[in-house]
Amino acid sequence: MYQASYEIATRGRGLLELTGQVTEAAREAAVSTGIAHVFVHHTSASLLITENADPAVHRDLERVLARLAPDGDPEFEHDAEGPDDMPAHVRSMLTGCSLSVPVTGGRLALGTWQGIYLYEHRHAPHRRRITVTVQGA
Amino acid sequence: MYQASYEIATRGRGLLELTGQVTEAAREAAVSTGIAHVFVHHTSASLLITENADPAVHRDLERVLARLAPDGDPEFEHDAEGPDDMPAHVRSMLTGCSLSVPVTGGRLALGTWQGIYLYEHRHAPHRRRITVTVQGA
Amino acid sequence: MYQASYEIATRGRGLLELTGQVTEAAREAAVSTGIAHVFVHHTSASLLITENADPAVHRDLERVLARLAPDGDPEFEHDAEGPDDMPAHVRSMLTGCSLSVPVTGGRLALGTWQGIYLYEHRHAPHRRRITVTVQGA
Repeated sequence: MYQASYEIATRGRGLLELTGQVTEAAREAAVSTGIAHVFVHHTSASLLITENADPAVHRDLERVLARLAPDGDPEFEHDAEGPDDMPAHVRSMLTGCSLSVPVTGGRLALGTWQGIYLYEHRHAPHRRRITVTVQGA
Repeated sequence: MYQASYEIATRGRGLLELTGQVTEAAREAAVSTGIAHVFVHHTSASLLITENADPAVHRDLERVLARLAPDGDPEFEHDAEGPDDMPAHVRSMLTGCSLSVPVTGGRLALGTWQGIYLYEHRHAPHRRRITVTVQGA
Repeated sequence: MYQASYEIATRGRGLLELTGQVTEAAREAAVSTGIAHVFVHHTSASLLITENADPAVHRDLERVLARLAPDGDPEFEHDAEGPDDMPAHVRSMLTGCSLSVPVTGGRLALGTWQGIYLYEHRHAPHRRRITVTVQGA
């Protein structure tokens, strides 16, 4: 049982790769077979496993979320922190704040094209806390 | 390894907070470091971690799901239990039926603004079964 | 701690039931209480728990995803592998590549109407790798 927390400085809306931190946590945990769990302690940022090769994929994912939850949507009541406040909660609902990946042979068993990302949904840079927990034998 | 099941009486469509039950399960489990896993045994209700302070956030999330999966959608084939039957399955697909949260220092490590919710997607009140499993050391 | 990987041959876009494989893995793991975790090692296929009785539910879920991420969307930049390439990544973002189910009394504790599915999002048949990890006591 291994657990570590990190503060991640985001640069505003967009994806930030966490694969390195989670890979390192799985190595530190020194388990052969198990599960690495990642959690973000916020409701306006989320976690995602997606394609790690072409940056255009990330721009297209952003296009879809901008359609599903447009900034400044006049139907939204909650805008205490601005026009990107409620859309950030919607994006978090659709993508989720926890994910987990198998550990196999002592290594994080991601597919070739899979990367783990923190998705910042607010336009302003934020400090986001994530926790990685590795359980195994 | 701790596991408990609960029957939750919903009042029809909307969010019902489960943070208390999951916090209590994490305490009962008496683990210092681990993972608390929550599962809902249904395909027309789901689980969500979202903002716990402003009820307007919950109304806005409902607005988004009502747009993405409108009741009585004429394109839907499956309406055996009424116009909110298939939309409930779509909402469940988009939000998910399992989630997990780290346990740190013997406590459920939610962020300040995070609450755990059961999302009832049917209009009629239902009895929903959830299972909380806590693993740790 | 039990772990097994499988190669699944898909027949192109659509749902393929994995409940049998995961149920069997939970049995092989020989744990009484625990968690069964399923992971798909790809970014254009995903995992889903949904209704297992009426095939019309699966067709309606497909209708919703086809609206949210239409093939050949002119706004998408990434189309290296064709008009269903980027939509597959969007569908994967919205449905997720990992899920987990409690094990209770030595059995996978799915609800009566819940089935576990691999969702192939590409039109062509593919070989997809999944890993099932069971942890428990």
